[in-house]
Amino acid sequence: MSKFWSRTAREAKPYTPGEQPNELQVIKLNTNENPYPPSPNTLEAMKRVVNEDLRKYPTPTVDSLKSVIANREGVNDEQVFVGNGSDEVLAFAFQAFFESNEAIKFPGVTYSFYPVYANLYGIPFQEVPLNEDFTINVDGMKQSIGGVIFPNPNAPTGLALRLNQVEKVLQGNPNSVVVVDEAYVEFGAESAVQLVEQYPNLLVTKTLSKSHALAGIRVGYAIGQEELIEGLERIKNSFNSYTINRVSLAGAEAALRDDAYYQETLERVINTRVWFKQSLEELGFEVLDSKANFLFVKPVRVEAEWLYLTLKERGFYIRYFDKSKVRGYVRISVGTDEEMERLLNEISNLLKNYVQ
Amino acid sequence: MSKFWSRTAREAKPYTPGEQPNELQVIKLNTNENPYPPSPNTLEAMKRVVNEDLRKYPTPTVDSLKSVIANREGVNDEQVFVGNGSDEVLAFAFQAFFESNEAIKFPGVTYSFYPVYANLYGIPFQEVPLNEDFTINVDGMKQSIGGVIFPNPNAPTGLALRLNQVEKVLQGNPNSVVVVDEAYVEFGAESAVQLVEQYPNLLVTKTLSKSHALAGIRVGYAIGQEELIEGLERIKNSFNSYTINRVSLAGAEAALRDDAYYQETLERVINTRVWFKQSLEELGFEVLDSKANFLFVKPVRVEAEWLYLTLKERGFYIRYFDKSKVRGYVRISVGTDEEMERLLNEISNLLKNYVQ
Repeated sequence: MSKFWSRTAREAKPYTPGEQPNELQVIKLNTNENPYPPSPNTLEAMKRVVNEDLRKYPTPTVDSLKSVIANREGVNDEQVFVGNGSDEVLAFAFQAFFESNEAIKFPGVTYSFYPVYANLYGIPFQEVPLNEDFTINVDGMKQSIGGVIFPNPNAPTGLALRLNQVEKVLQGNPNSVVVVDEAYVEFGAESAVQLVEQYPNLLVTKTLSKSHALAGIRVGYAIGQEELIEGLERIKNSFNSYTINRVSLAGAEAALRDDAYYQETLERVINTRVWFKQSLEELGFEVLDSKANFLFVKPVRVEAEWLYLTLKERGFYIRYFDKSKVRGYVRISVGTDEEMERLLNEISNLLKNYVQ
Repeated sequence: MSKFWSRTAREAKPYTPGEQPNELQVIKLNTNENPYPPSPNTLEAMKRVVNEDLRKYPTPTVDSLKSVIANREGVNDEQVFVGNGSDEVLAFAFQAFFESNEAIKFPGVTYSFYPVYANLYGIPFQEVPLNEDFTINVDGMKQSIGGVIFPNPNAPTGLALRLNQVEKVLQGNPNSVVVVDEAYVEFGAESAVQLVEQYPNLLVTKTLSKSHALAGIRVGYAIGQEELIEGLERIKNSFNSYTINRVSLAGAEAALRDDAYYQETLERVINTRVWFKQSLEELGFEVLDSKANFLFVKPVRVEAEWLYLTLKERGFYIRYFDKSKVRGYVRISVGTDEEMERLLNEISNLLKNYVQ
């Protein structure tokens, strides 16, 4: 605490991201990264722009990337906003659409950055408890004067709402903005982008970090009707004229143009998730029906925290959230088949030795 | 205007950056970029990290880059904050140190992003008129309960305060934060970093955009005592865990390690500035004594706006600010000798033809 800090700085409750270990031997299944590399075309495109033009600012309006995104998503260029990772897009959305005098709603178990943004911008919030089965309470998300935000699939559960359920939330909040955070949608859920034409209160956010294996370049985007996009641009242009650097711009464009490659890696991740889930269930673990690139898992016989700590000692990083509602669970990102086989092996051995 | 916009979005007054023309033939002297390319080592270091590791998030704490910056600036690692361009660093500083109930002070003619940030975060401000000779009114910057921010050298004048004048501002505001924005300091002014040990209320911001010819990768930083840096980290970690991508991190580190190269390009820019200023003065133009990589110029016989528009038609982009106090001036970035010779030639011809 410092006498020089503003109230905002004093009252901030910063987010803690998953660890980024430096050791190369670690099997890193804690931050939901894609286990496969970006496409060769993506890397080539980035190398090409590492040249003397880096002395110049990037484009402030990122028109060319917007156009590629619009084309992929089947919307107009004016319905696209791009940010320095979808975290930045979400931060701008909190500023652009939510107010300090009206509580917003989000699920009681969800991406833990939402209450952090709300604190930062002084926005009150109401956490809507999940249903017994860990699904989002759709009726509970209605009638929020302040606005709504939820991930689909939800994090860290991985459970997805169907599109007609998302529509119910939209219809239940006709005068406030509903942000659907689709960071993980490409791994098996339905995107709400197709509802954008119909619902002026819908903002969908996506990221290249997971689906396009580009967490390292920080590019996320939002799709919505023009007036919502304009609201985001007003905030962004009051914050930083050039949020996306030249190299990330080139990488993002190339990646989105190389869709066949990424579709293939998405399928591989999904296939791995399926067999790994089944294998954990055979060990007696309870595993939610994830549509994301991670599994939310309740171990049997051992405590979740013990499993997290013990695996870490042995070089496997997974995620454990020390919060009452999810204390019995761990979140495991889906890696390569080989990584998941090694992890499964390790868990099986731990369980055997634990029993003895 | 949209019914979905927050008050913040409605009341925002976004900044307008200088144009980024796509045409290659344009001589671009409007956004104060360095005319020389980044060093070969910098580009090589960036290419090396364009590899499969881009699937992973960057480091959220940027420890290694902080260490390189600390070493260069002669401070501790804990006295360094890094952002996605110094514009992001400044935005965080407004949030971390300034309040909605106390006016901050900045010069009446200065970087036009300051009132934009103030509007975004609801911070009242008082513009302290410059002295007759366009220098910052040092006494007028004292006794600001809300805080102070000014560039040194100032923009768009290019005029610099001496260190003892900066100290007067610091001593005149013992209980509020003074941000000294040193975006252009390397082109000939004195850095206040050496005052950081002595003044807990001092935050100095710098950027690699100009001095290190890396506007395209978006890296800026701040130096201050640990409690100010911690205030910035609290805001950043409530906004976006990973603000700097992997490629920019590698480029920034390599550039700061390659200081000899950049010192040489700085000297070239300074030498060009000196002869170009003199040449404009020989045409009768009034030119302020810039310590930055641009000149603030009052043309004679022709209107500043006419000169700006006419040069633009002829492929020379300079900057004109349509604001009462500076309407008689244009700002011209210092390019290569060849670029400035061509510009000088063009201006001379325009003046000749204008008279006829």
